Amino acid sequence: MDTRTSDTHLRIERLRDALAAHGVHAVLVPSADPHLSEYLPERWQGRQWASGFTGSMGNLVVTRDGAALFADSRYWTQAEAQLAGTGIALEKVSSGASTQYIDWLARQLQPGQVLAVDGQVLGLALANALRTALARAGIALRTDLDLVQDAWDGRPGLPGQPVYEHQPPQAAVSRADKLARVRAAMAAAQASHHLVSTVDDLAWLLNLRGSDVECNPVFIAHLLLDTAGGQLFIADGKVPADVAARLAADGIRLAPYAGAAAALAALPAGATLLVDPKRVTLGLREAVPAGVQVVEQINPSTLLKSRKTAEEAAFIREAMAQDGAALCEFYAAFEASLARGERWSELDVDARLSAERAKRPGFVGLSFSTIAGFNANGALPHYRALPESFSQIEGDGLLLIDSGGQYLGGTTDITRVWPIGRVSDAQKRDYTRVLKGTIALSRTRFPRGTLSPMLDAIARAPLWEHGLDYGHGTGHGVGYFMNVHEGPQSISKAIPDATMAMEPGMVTSIEPGLYRPGQWGVRIENLVLNVAVDTPEHGAFGEMLAFETLTLCPIDTRCIDASLLRADEIAWLNGYHATVRERLRPLVGGAALAWLVERTEPLAG
Amino acid sequence: MDTRTSDTHLRIERLRDALAAHGVHAVLVPSADPHLSEYLPERWQGRQWASGFTGSMGNLVVTRDGAALFADSRYWTQAEAQLAGTGIALEKVSSGASTQYIDWLARQLQPGQVLAVDGQVLGLALANALRTALARAGIALRTDLDLVQDAWDGRPGLPGQPVYEHQPPQAAVSRADKLARVRAAMAAAQASHHLVSTVDDLAWLLNLRGSDVECNPVFIAHLLLDTAGGQLFIADGKVPADVAARLAADGIRLAPYAGAAAALAALPAGATLLVDPKRVTLGLREAVPAGVQVVEQINPSTLLKSRKTAEEAAFIREAMAQDGAALCEFYAAFEASLARGERWSELDVDARLSAERAKRPGFVGLSFSTIAGFNANGALPHYRALPESFSQIEGDGLLLIDSGGQYLGGTTDITRVWPIGRVSDAQKRDYTRVLKGTIALSRTRFPRGTLSPMLDAIARAPLWEHGLDYGHGTGHGVGYFMNVHEGPQSISKAIPDATMAMEPGMVTSIEPGLYRPGQWGVRIENLVLNVAVDTPEHGAFGEMLAFETLTLCPIDTRCIDASLLRADEIAWLNGYHATVRERLRPLVGGAALAWLVERTEPLAG
Repeated sequence: MDTRTSDTHLRIERLRDALAAHGVHAVLVPSADPHLSEYLPERWQGRQWASGFTGSMGNLVVTRDGAALFADSRYWTQAEAQLAGTGIALEKVSSGASTQYIDWLARQLQPGQVLAVDGQVLGLALANALRTALARAGIALRTDLDLVQDAWDGRPGLPGQPVYEHQPPQAAVSRADKLARVRAAMAAAQASHHLVSTVDDLAWLLNLRGSDVECNPVFIAHLLLDTAGGQLFIADGKVPADVAARLAADGIRLAPYAGAAAALAALPAGATLLVDPKRVTLGLREAVPAGVQVVEQINPSTLLKSRKTAEEAAFIREAMAQDGAALCEFYAAFEASLARGERWSELDVDARLSAERAKRPGFVGLSFSTIAGFNANGALPHYRALPESFSQIEGDGLLLIDSGGQYLGGTTDITRVWPIGRVSDAQKRDYTRVLKGTIALSRTRFPRGTLSPMLDAIARAPLWEHGLDYGHGTGHGVGYFMNVHEGPQSISKAIPDATMAMEPGMVTSIEPGLYRPGQWGVRIENLVLNVAVDTPEHGAFGEMLAFETLTLCPIDTRCIDASLLRADEIAWLNGYHATVRERLRPLVGGAALAWLVERTEPLAG
Repeated sequence: MDTRTSDTHLRIERLRDALAAHGVHAVLVPSADPHLSEYLPERWQGRQWASGFTGSMGNLVVTRDGAALFADSRYWTQAEAQLAGTGIALEKVSSGASTQYIDWLARQLQPGQVLAVDGQVLGLALANALRTALARAGIALRTDLDLVQDAWDGRPGLPGQPVYEHQPPQAAVSRADKLARVRAAMAAAQASHHLVSTVDDLAWLLNLRGSDVECNPVFIAHLLLDTAGGQLFIADGKVPADVAARLAADGIRLAPYAGAAAALAALPAGATLLVDPKRVTLGLREAVPAGVQVVEQINPSTLLKSRKTAEEAAFIREAMAQDGAALCEFYAAFEASLARGERWSELDVDARLSAERAKRPGFVGLSFSTIAGFNANGALPHYRALPESFSQIEGDGLLLIDSGGQYLGGTTDITRVWPIGRVSDAQKRDYTRVLKGTIALSRTRFPRGTLSPMLDAIARAPLWEHGLDYGHGTGHGVGYFMNVHEGPQSISKAIPDATMAMEPGMVTSIEPGLYRPGQWGVRIENLVLNVAVDTPEHGAFGEMLAFETLTLCPIDTRCIDASLLRADEIAWLNGYHATVRERLRPLVGGAALAWLVERTEPLAG
């Protein structure tokens, strides 16, 4: 048994000690924090701490004599390796966010036994679903215990990085204006108070940014708004005095991070509290006294921030050009270096590409960890090269690079695939079919209000035609100098909810892919902006939206099998490349300019 | 005030008398019966009786001093005409099935006042949604009153038509086998009992048919199954003695129609009852005693009957050929007659087309009332020519005909549009764009299990591209000698539920359209069968399904603007017409054969 597995054994035993001490029979440790974030501060990585599994999504369940990790197909290879020897079973489920562990629990426990989940990190909507499913299985639920706290000696504290203001001109809407718009939505819902726990909503609403989560410029806090002011529950020392003064001028007072529950408990009888059941925890919801009416609806800020203003869109276009220029500089140097016979690893790609981005005006940091996957590694959609495990880029094949930056004026996210050595006919067919999906959806016009998941099939149809598909969504919303994944819209097979309507100003990715395990992967990703378009019908059949492609970077034509493209598809690609050349030309020079011109040459039909 | 409006005034007053008598403040009269059918026996057409509005969907709400009818856009023109002078306001809502009347009620009533809805015709799932929404508005709900019964002197009784058996060979699966398959699903859900209230489920499961609802070969009954037998609650005299004997041999005993609630109330403690919350009423659900556990899931029969067997599919293909041959005979005669200068009305189309269908082997009746709409009438998706209101087919334009038949071996539903006189360029453009939608979806392959609504956008995209859209769904499931609308699958913008997965054997319509109010309408509809297909990937990315187009009838090429079609679209159309010619040629002769050959000539690219 190596150190890693013996650590895990010990930690699972500590969790079992906690089970026994509290007289409960199982504990669920989800990937979650009190803010229901996708990416977690270290303090809330209890599932990773206990199991050793480092994937971003998965549920750990520990009973008095068993333990299992529930992960979806994206993580099976990784989880099998990381769980080997730990005594934790890998349970393969169809979605990491599902409650499929309940069937397993029902087999492990006797009716009437008790599952503990920390209500402080359990979303309200999920808690309701969990309670119903557990009741059906005869299992009781306790949510008032944080067993991870009992078991984890040396658990990290709250992240302490300072917050800072997102300044004009990029912060194009003032904090006061944003607060007024949220209060208008509160008034429409007849709410006197509104609790905001989600960190992207908070950062947007207050025009503040932070560094509490890697690559996401957010900070850990809760906000309780009323009709005139509000309390920001945030760890001491994170808000500089000048920022605190300006917050106070907008009616926002600071309060200790741990004080949110007490403030909710102190709400006056007759108050009406607006909360978003998908964006607030059970723990905080249960702190609300019985005399307070609770209105459940989506956070107004979630809808508001998804619709970028015209000023924001202009800054995003500028950030996209800077990002594209950085990509040109990188790729030109990369290709020239390979031509000189120099060796590159996947890690080198990350380092050099990030360095190019860092030279660009407005750059703040990466928007996520670069994915540079050569051949078989490109077939793992969530691959990340690590110092202890990476590949050299040598021989023939495809190199998939998925990367993005945070700029003061926007967030980027782009995937391209590049030929290394000789590209096979089969690789060209796959690449071209994925490209057909990207093109098909990019060109689609649709009525305002269309539920975003309904567009998913348009990107898949060119792949489905040949028996192909991909296991991830087609597109996710993207923030404005904010999280690279943001809702509410989502172009995916997932069942839509009523808040997923496409509205002008939304920024979304289009990223169909194709993955041949052990061989190669293809994904071609652009960000697109929902823009209103006029048509010959002038709205008689509904207001129509189109996608403006924001991402500016050549799509390598050497990987294309042109015989598979229709004339209209080639025309789209050539039009895109003409735009890329025109927009990036002023921002690059020398070898990068020459590379840009070469890679944006029109494709013959 | 004419007779019609004075009748309505009187009936609304009778409902208000009932409100006062029971001390309630409003009554909701939905379009619903105890079987939650789409089409209602006359006994349950209380909304139509009280309001005079004859549309198939709409909710009537009557308060002590107000009344409003809530209908969606399909019915606004009709409702405005039929409600004029009645004192009933037309409230325009986005969907006829919605609960948007609650906002209106909240304005009319004081908090604490009471709305009555007959729980015997209120679906369980809808009841839950209604209760939640009313509670939010402070309105109380009573479901134990049938005020329509109080108000409606001379209310029709239960339909009395006899039932008959669907015989082999077309009834390709025996009643015993179907019962065994439903019992296997009951066992999987650990259910000892199962209540079936929906008439299509009942007819399928028992291999019985009836004539209680126009065009739908169903009968009014409930069935309470247990693990060995079952009770069929059906009006006395509907089941012939020989049929009753054969039912008894399969363990099904007859019981009075009104006895279902009492039988549920008599279920033993410890029993587990499977019910489908979308397919059972609140009234029957509330009859279940507390000691009985209720498992809510979709009726097993709803899923089973949606997947036609290979034998059933073969009979459907034969019915489609007979139906197509009838259409050829009709159209050949219709065109020749017009060429001779004879006058036709929309009513003549219905009569003559139905007569042609009636000549075909296996024909039982129409599957819905024929829609024959010339020009502006074709722009009303649910138009029906009536003796008191119809158009002559004369001059230039487009004639839309949507029709279908019930055959012992299947149910048909087809829409075609025919040129009358000269067709304008604008009409050809509209026709061709709708056709592009029909073709695009007909050719789509997709993974088994794809949620059916996700395919909707593929049919709309060619219209969306030009700012066009249509207000109805793209496709509905179709029964097997059964209702022309059947679930669970539905290709539409509506939010999907988890039971809408596409599976092999399902039959669905593909029917995009385009409607220019006051001018013309286009809809091109075929039925398609989900068939498994092999691909070069042999299922590595999931089992793939394709649509086999079942409907056999020329798609008129004189209305096409060929410059708008791509080569691959023309190839699909020519391939379809080659199949239509080959399959129908043996079934028609003389002028109809000549017409078939002419109308299936390949279109030049």
